[in-house]
Amino acid sequence: MDQAVPLSLGEEITARIDALAAISATPDAITRVFLTPQHRGAADMLMAWMREAGMAAHLDAIGNVCGRYEGASSGRSCLMLGSHYDTVRDAGRWDGPLGIITAIACVADLHRRHVRLPFAVEIVGFADEEGVRFGSTLLGSRAVAGTLDRRVFDSTDVDGVSMRDAMAAFGLDAALVGQAARARGDIHAYLELHIEQGPVLESEHLPVGVVTAISGATRLAVSLDGFAGHAGTVPMALRRDALAGAAECIVAIESLCKSDEALVGTVGIIDARPGATNVIPGRVSFTVDVRSASDADRKRAVTDIARRIEAIARRRDLVPHIDVTHESGTVSCALWLSSQIGDAIAAEGHRILTLPSGAGHDGMAMIDITAIAMIFVRCRGGISHNPAEHASVEDVDTAARVLLRVIENFRPVGP
Amino acid sequence: MDQAVPLSLGEEITARIDALAAISATPDAITRVFLTPQHRGAADMLMAWMREAGMAAHLDAIGNVCGRYEGASSGRSCLMLGSHYDTVRDAGRWDGPLGIITAIACVADLHRRHVRLPFAVEIVGFADEEGVRFGSTLLGSRAVAGTLDRRVFDSTDVDGVSMRDAMAAFGLDAALVGQAARARGDIHAYLELHIEQGPVLESEHLPVGVVTAISGATRLAVSLDGFAGHAGTVPMALRRDALAGAAECIVAIESLCKSDEALVGTVGIIDARPGATNVIPGRVSFTVDVRSASDADRKRAVTDIARRIEAIARRRDLVPHIDVTHESGTVSCALWLSSQIGDAIAAEGHRILTLPSGAGHDGMAMIDITAIAMIFVRCRGGISHNPAEHASVEDVDTAARVLLRVIENFRPVGP
Repeated sequence: MDQAVPLSLGEEITARIDALAAISATPDAITRVFLTPQHRGAADMLMAWMREAGMAAHLDAIGNVCGRYEGASSGRSCLMLGSHYDTVRDAGRWDGPLGIITAIACVADLHRRHVRLPFAVEIVGFADEEGVRFGSTLLGSRAVAGTLDRRVFDSTDVDGVSMRDAMAAFGLDAALVGQAARARGDIHAYLELHIEQGPVLESEHLPVGVVTAISGATRLAVSLDGFAGHAGTVPMALRRDALAGAAECIVAIESLCKSDEALVGTVGIIDARPGATNVIPGRVSFTVDVRSASDADRKRAVTDIARRIEAIARRRDLVPHIDVTHESGTVSCALWLSSQIGDAIAAEGHRILTLPSGAGHDGMAMIDITAIAMIFVRCRGGISHNPAEHASVEDVDTAARVLLRVIENFRPVGP
Repeated sequence: MDQAVPLSLGEEITARIDALAAISATPDAITRVFLTPQHRGAADMLMAWMREAGMAAHLDAIGNVCGRYEGASSGRSCLMLGSHYDTVRDAGRWDGPLGIITAIACVADLHRRHVRLPFAVEIVGFADEEGVRFGSTLLGSRAVAGTLDRRVFDSTDVDGVSMRDAMAAFGLDAALVGQAARARGDIHAYLELHIEQGPVLESEHLPVGVVTAISGATRLAVSLDGFAGHAGTVPMALRRDALAGAAECIVAIESLCKSDEALVGTVGIIDARPGATNVIPGRVSFTVDVRSASDADRKRAVTDIARRIEAIARRRDLVPHIDVTHESGTVSCALWLSSQIGDAIAAEGHRILTLPSGAGHDGMAMIDITAIAMIFVRCRGGISHNPAEHASVEDVDTAARVLLRVIENFRPVGP
């Protein structure tokens, strides 16, 4: 392209998304996992772009990429922008990198225009949000928030390599991870821009939206024990079919979650044993994932689901077992910052849509040291964690202009 | 036990069931598969018992154990008794052997009393009914009926050994399998005694029952394609959840089959993809096994099930795919022989209960050359294909006395 025609923010960001996507352990989809050579390569690329944008950049004690663009005077508290640059396996290119690269593009724009703000702008590219390698999520942001559970260093990957040893091989010292932690007073707020990973903005024909909260989630592991038997010889009336019971539970869970617009409930895994065409299943286990932006609604739904499962099991003479395997409360975005995002969206000429985030994000860890807010960007078909993940250049451009407006007009509240 | 106190038929049969059960490839459950050393060991044991009962015994061209007890004059057509002596993996000891060993005990009783009948009595221990090793069932009885598809010799076991080579290693020649086939006029009827493998006799408090027919069966492989998505970010109303759709289908199949007492329908295998707690399933496949003693009822039920699946899929915007993977028609037992069984049961002082066999049996192959009938024996909890499979000494004794009465009072009809 002729250098005389400057790239739009959207074009510049999209080109960099593609460049970063080339750093992958798999050729056709993106796999970029914590403490791998791909981690290192992506970190170096991001730091180079940060420096080009006038920022001081370094890798912190957990492997996060950290850049700082000083304010009008040095040593000020910062507005922290960021997202993560690790991926799930066979991922798309937008989940995570969009937030980092868009933030860098905004700072680069300030830098080109020699704009210094009354506060510093920092960008963090978190090294591990997805938790693919060691099974624990939000490692990068927990280290920054100072809440990383040190037992995680002993966890091992599929090859038996401990996180501590993987850090050493990467050039990091687990004992020094405290150096990544930031003080509460350092940061006015943490603001993350991210693809929606869902279909709401697309169905509302909007490029961006304001996140109200990161929904709390409860995960259940359910099993139903009945009695296996021959598919041909046990009359229907004498059966204790664990799969028929589980099917009734799944229909009930869906129906219950449909009755509340703010609630989502999913059965994602099911396993029927012994698992033969001609054998009545004697044992079925399945998972339930329940989320809502309201903790009270979620808890009520989980109680209702458990009661329904128990009632169905009782009627069918099945033995139910329900374990809570995960529970996280809702993390609210700061209304004062969300309203500044809304102002920026309106100034760009778009309707302000607020929506919860059903997916988890680094803000869930950052909330422990600062206020958080999020901007969602429309993604095609709501598809994420898939090579087909896509955001349009136009939407990315809009999102970048919204973020730039938020940065330039940022009015800190609180400490 | 003091030899002066003769064993009851039930005790004698149970002791032999235990002796045969010791021939197994697995220590705690029974695994006795076609053309293995266990096959050979069991065949030798059965032939020894046949000879002890006054029978001529030999191994036929497919590995069936064949014994003949001549009638009052030699060369007469026979009443053929039998069952199979191969097992599924981790099997019980009764499924199959009970029919062979009880028949031998009955002939031994005739022999002890020097009774010769106006017809011969033959016993066949079929070498492979379950089809564990080569994936094709009824190999022994199909060879006897002359209907064995010779392509089966090219099929291979999990180790890649072809059936032809396994036969050669055992000392059999696949090219000579035709020698196992019997002529239609040789056999008045084939009568099999077998554990019920279901809970009906137990729930009716009866030791034995008369089988009306071996139920026909249809097996379907069903898949539903929806759209995978993030469990947290896709609102319920925008989902195309393949598992919720499959669950509704399973509930509908169960409800439909419950509406007809003679029908059974089972979903035994289910697979939801991609299969993660936090991902809405985009594709689910499951099997359906439908059986009825009435071919018309079964076919109507299969049509109804397919329509219900298609309607559910349409309403949920899922793409259904339904394949028929197996279809077998109902094989009726000969009423003239079943009524002789009924007479024997009544003579032993029990109520005559008729019931279909939902499981397959060698009679499904034997029907091609002769009339068939079956006697079912109560088994504890209806459990089969499991080490816990059990029949009581008392029930076995009753069953043996019924079978002996049928043999002694047998009046052939037809050719």
